[in-house]
Amino acid sequence: MADRLPGAVAPDSLLARTVAAIRPADAQALAAAHQRQQILTKPEGSLGQLEALSIRLAGMSGQVPVPVPSRPVVGLFAGDHGVWAQGVSPDPQEITAQMAGNMAAGGAGISVLSAQMGAQVWVTDVGVATELPDDSGVRNRNVRRSTDDISQGPAMTLEEAVRALEVGIETADEAVAQGADILVTGEMGIANTTPAAALISLFTGLPVDAVTGRGAGADDRRQAHKISVIQRALDVNRPDASDPVAALAKVGGFEHAAMAGLVLGAAAHRIPVVIDGVIACSSALLATAIAPDAADFLVPGHAGAEPGITAALEKLGLPALLDLGLRLGEGTGAVLALPIIQASAHILNEMATFEDAAVTDIKVTGEIDLPVEEGAAR
Amino acid sequence: MADRLPGAVAPDSLLARTVAAIRPADAQALAAAHQRQQILTKPEGSLGQLEALSIRLAGMSGQVPVPVPSRPVVGLFAGDHGVWAQGVSPDPQEITAQMAGNMAAGGAGISVLSAQMGAQVWVTDVGVATELPDDSGVRNRNVRRSTDDISQGPAMTLEEAVRALEVGIETADEAVAQGADILVTGEMGIANTTPAAALISLFTGLPVDAVTGRGAGADDRRQAHKISVIQRALDVNRPDASDPVAALAKVGGFEHAAMAGLVLGAAAHRIPVVIDGVIACSSALLATAIAPDAADFLVPGHAGAEPGITAALEKLGLPALLDLGLRLGEGTGAVLALPIIQASAHILNEMATFEDAAVTDIKVTGEIDLPVEEGAAR
Repeated sequence: MADRLPGAVAPDSLLARTVAAIRPADAQALAAAHQRQQILTKPEGSLGQLEALSIRLAGMSGQVPVPVPSRPVVGLFAGDHGVWAQGVSPDPQEITAQMAGNMAAGGAGISVLSAQMGAQVWVTDVGVATELPDDSGVRNRNVRRSTDDISQGPAMTLEEAVRALEVGIETADEAVAQGADILVTGEMGIANTTPAAALISLFTGLPVDAVTGRGAGADDRRQAHKISVIQRALDVNRPDASDPVAALAKVGGFEHAAMAGLVLGAAAHRIPVVIDGVIACSSALLATAIAPDAADFLVPGHAGAEPGITAALEKLGLPALLDLGLRLGEGTGAVLALPIIQASAHILNEMATFEDAAVTDIKVTGEIDLPVEEGAAR
Repeated sequence: MADRLPGAVAPDSLLARTVAAIRPADAQALAAAHQRQQILTKPEGSLGQLEALSIRLAGMSGQVPVPVPSRPVVGLFAGDHGVWAQGVSPDPQEITAQMAGNMAAGGAGISVLSAQMGAQVWVTDVGVATELPDDSGVRNRNVRRSTDDISQGPAMTLEEAVRALEVGIETADEAVAQGADILVTGEMGIANTTPAAALISLFTGLPVDAVTGRGAGADDRRQAHKISVIQRALDVNRPDASDPVAALAKVGGFEHAAMAGLVLGAAAHRIPVVIDGVIACSSALLATAIAPDAADFLVPGHAGAEPGITAALEKLGLPALLDLGLRLGEGTGAVLALPIIQASAHILNEMATFEDAAVTDIKVTGEIDLPVEEGAAR
C-alpha cells in the first residue's frame, strides 16, 4: 500500500509503517462467525445488523468468540480553518477553543455520553487558532494555529499533513497501549464541514452541491455561498484522489487528518473504530484512500441528514447503526452506538445454540402442511 | 376513563383502579425540560431524538432534572394460540414452551441483551399450551392453556381477558415494588403475529393486508393464507374498537393482554415502558384504547419491517429509536434501546449551559456578514 503515499514520506516513518501493517479482515474468522450465527436459537438473520456486525468483529479480531469491546477511547481532535473567513459558518471562530475546553471539562454532549458509556475522551488540539490554557485538560499536539484558506490555496504543507496524520496514529497507539480495545473519532472545529465536503466530493467523485450540507446551522443563502467556496477550493488546488495525502494538504484540515490517522492506527491494531458525522466520514474516505483495507475496521455509528454522510457511507459500502437525527458532531453519534456494537459481540458469544437449549430448529420447520384451500380449513 | 371498560369490570377491580390512576404527562415539567434544552452547549435541536425523548421523560416523572432510568425489568409473557392450527406460522407450537425455558435459562437473544443492559427478565407463562417444568424459571400465571381459534370464534372469555390484563398489571406493580424504574415488554408465542395483526387492523382502521407481515418467517403463499385467516377472525367475531377489552377477548391473545396490562401498570406508576415489534405494538394500541393517556409513557425502542409496526407507531404518533433490521421479537429491540433512553436523560441533566461553560451562545451568532458577492471575497 506504500504506493498510495507520496515519495516524500520516508518508508520508516510512523505513517508508512502503520499503513504497511494494515491487513484485511480474517477470512477464516468471518466464516466461523457466519456459521455460528446459523445455529443460535433464533431464525437466521432475525437479529439484523447485530448479526452482520458480529461477523465483522470476528474478521477484525480474527477470533470467535469475539472480544467484547469494553474499553473505548474517543480520539477527539480540534482545529480551525482559514476558510472560515469566507463566511461559510454562522459561528465565531472562538467557539472552537471554548468548546474544546468544555469537552475536556466534561460539559459537552460528547463528554456526557462518553461518561455514560465508560469511554475516555482525549481532547487534542491539533490545529486550534488560539492557544488553550495549560489547565484546560486539552492535549497539545498543535501542528499549526489554523490551516490557510483553501479557497485561496493549499490548507497546509505536505509535511504538516503527514504530521497531523501521525498525531492521530500516535493517539491510537497510546490508547491501545493503555488498554483501549475500540476507538471512536470525535472532532471540534468551526467551519470544518467545508473541507470535509471538499474531501468527500473528491473521493466520491460527486459534485460539490450533492455532498454539501448546512453544517451545524446555515440558511439557504449561506448554503449556496458555501458550495461556491468549496468549488473554488477544488478549482484552485486541483487535488488528485489517487494522491490522498497531497489532496489532504490541499483541501483538508488538521482534525480531518488526525481522525484519518486514528482510523489507520485502529486498523493496524485490528480493533474497530467508530465514526459518525460528515467530518469523520471525510476522514474515513481519506484513510481508505491511503489504505483500502482500513475499511474492514470502520463501524459507522450514526447516519445523518448531511448529504455528505450518505454519499461517504455509500462509497464505503457500510451501513450506519443509528439514525436519531443528531447533527451536533463531536463524535456523539458514534459514542451512542457503543452499546449496540457490544450487543452484537454478546449475541455471537453468549446465545444458546438449538442443540444446547433443546429447542426445535426453527429453520427446518417450513414443512408443515397448509390447509389446501380456504374452504378446507376447519 | 372507566367508560372504556365493560360494565362487567368492577370499579374496585385492579384493572379499573389502575386505569383510573393514569394521568397525562406533566405540562409544567415538559415546559421546564424544553426550556433547559435551549440553553445547553449545542445548537438547539442538534441532539435530535435525544432532546425530544428527554422532554417526554420529564413529562412522565414530573421532574427536571429527570430520573435516569437505571433499574429495568422486562415483563416477558408467553402464550399459545388456537389459530396456529390454521397453518399461519411455519413453526411447531412446542417452540413456545421450549423458548420460554431458554429465555428463563439465559440462552435467548432477550436474555443475552438484557444481561448486558442490566435488565432483569421476568418470563411469565400467561397462556402456554403445555405445562412448563417447575424448575424452568418461568413464572406461572397461566390463565388457560392456549386461546381458542379466532378464525372460528372468540379467543377467550371476557373474564379471561380481564385476568390476563391484570397479570400484566400485577407484574408491573411487583417490579416497581422491587425498585424497577423502567419497564420493557417482551413476548414469546408461536403464531402470535396473527392476533396482533387483527388488533392492529381493528385499532388503526386499516385493512388486514396493509398491516399483516410475515412474522418470524413465512413465504408468499403462507402470507396470503394468513391474511385470509385474520380477515375471517374479524368477520366471525366483529370486534368493536370502542369496546377494547371485549375486542381483546374476541381476537387477541393472552400475552397481548398481559403486555397491555404492563403498559397500563407503567403508566399508572408514571414510569416509561419500552415497546418494540408487532405484538408489543398491538398491545400498546389496546392499552391506549383502554386508557388514552397511557400513550404518554410509551417509548418505541425499535421500528421494523412488519407493516403493522409502522401502522401502529403512526397511530400512536411516536417515533422509534432504533431500526437495526431486527425481526426476532422477544423484546430484543426494546432492550437494545435502553442506553439511548438513559442517554437522553443524562444529556438533559448533565450538559453544561452556555453560561456555565463560558461558551458563546451558538444561537445568537447568525449575524456575521457574508461577503456581499463572490468577487468581493479575499
